[in-house]
Amino acid sequence: MTPDFDTELGTIRDELVRMTRLVGTAMNCGTQALLDADLTLAEAVIAADARIDTMANDVEQRCFDLITDSAPTPDQLRVVIGSLRIAASLERMGDLAEHVAKQSRLRYPRTSVPRELRATFAEMGDLAEAILTTTGAMIGTDDVDLAEEVAGHDDRIDALHRGLFAAVLAPTWEHGVEVAVDVTLLSRYYERYGDHAVSVARRVVTMVTGAPYVGVVLESAR
Amino acid sequence: MTPDFDTELGTIRDELVRMTRLVGTAMNCGTQALLDADLTLAEAVIAADARIDTMANDVEQRCFDLITDSAPTPDQLRVVIGSLRIAASLERMGDLAEHVAKQSRLRYPRTSVPRELRATFAEMGDLAEAILTTTGAMIGTDDVDLAEEVAGHDDRIDALHRGLFAAVLAPTWEHGVEVAVDVTLLSRYYERYGDHAVSVARRVVTMVTGAPYVGVVLESAR
Repeated sequence: MTPDFDTELGTIRDELVRMTRLVGTAMNCGTQALLDADLTLAEAVIAADARIDTMANDVEQRCFDLITDSAPTPDQLRVVIGSLRIAASLERMGDLAEHVAKQSRLRYPRTSVPRELRATFAEMGDLAEAILTTTGAMIGTDDVDLAEEVAGHDDRIDALHRGLFAAVLAPTWEHGVEVAVDVTLLSRYYERYGDHAVSVARRVVTMVTGAPYVGVVLESAR
Repeated sequence: MTPDFDTELGTIRDELVRMTRLVGTAMNCGTQALLDADLTLAEAVIAADARIDTMANDVEQRCFDLITDSAPTPDQLRVVIGSLRIAASLERMGDLAEHVAKQSRLRYPRTSVPRELRATFAEMGDLAEAILTTTGAMIGTDDVDLAEEVAGHDDRIDALHRGLFAAVLAPTWEHGVEVAVDVTLLSRYYERYGDHAVSVARRVVTMVTGAPYVGVVLESAR
């Protein structure tokens, strides 16, 4: 790779890592806002999403320019297209964090989360930040072995998601339909967030190992 | 543009149009399976998603090869990257159709849709097919004026989505928590489906008009 290409790719990589921090923090703070019915924090998360959007656009533009300026080799192109995809996934994860914050705002000064489900949502928030710390490390260091850790976090999010469903649908549920609907949607936001983190991790593996271009199917972990 | 580039781009375009037909049909058939508790149809929709995934991967590979083989100009690259994005959106819409079909299978031989909401879901299914017919026409003909029609269909889907929410949360709701949760998730699948259609339409406008590269923010209509 030419030095110019590497330099610009390093800038893109740094920006993606910064995005993982913002997106992880957004989901954790969104969760905090939800649990504490903290309107100020919810508004801060909602406002911060614009910055994530701007960074995603910046990464896209840089990738676009890099392709037109450098006529990349297939190996180089795989990394640039992968970066484009990762930016889009992180941007969408930011939206999901914003959804959680908006849910908090919608029910303020109440909270959508019944007392007995607080610990589950708190763990969801912790996992959301943890999964992006790991994903960010993968992007920053090319350490593909971390993909297993990302998958482990996602498995745990999925297990919590199933647990929330079971709680809502149990005969013992006593919080009515509105809270059931809120919990269902919230839980789905975390589940999708975890799926996107897995797709980012897989994309990094493809970029680093030079495995055949895998396409969108892996991109859209369900 | 060189003839080779145009020829290959034409092939990609044709494949995207074919995908819009499959994805539109999948959502409409998924809706039918849901309303009729038709397990055979549900299984057919679920099985057909693999074909959509394969086509999306094929489009991606073609776009990837086209970039490395042709060193595209910025104008050309905008179209190729746009096609990549559209394939990813259509693939995801196929997943959402599959989710509807799986919901039908999950509750078989019952249906998740109470009698008084049948007409709403039937209209959602019709709109899902209609919005992709229009989106496919945009991709096939570069007729950017159709974007308004896509937006109109999406507005109608959003209105139905809000109506379903209102029905579920109304004091008169008499179908319990499980049906409420099912209807909530189903409704969200249609809403997201409409959002993706809008993002595809916007992407076509960008590709055709050569407006500045707009990035992921427009991509992720909420």
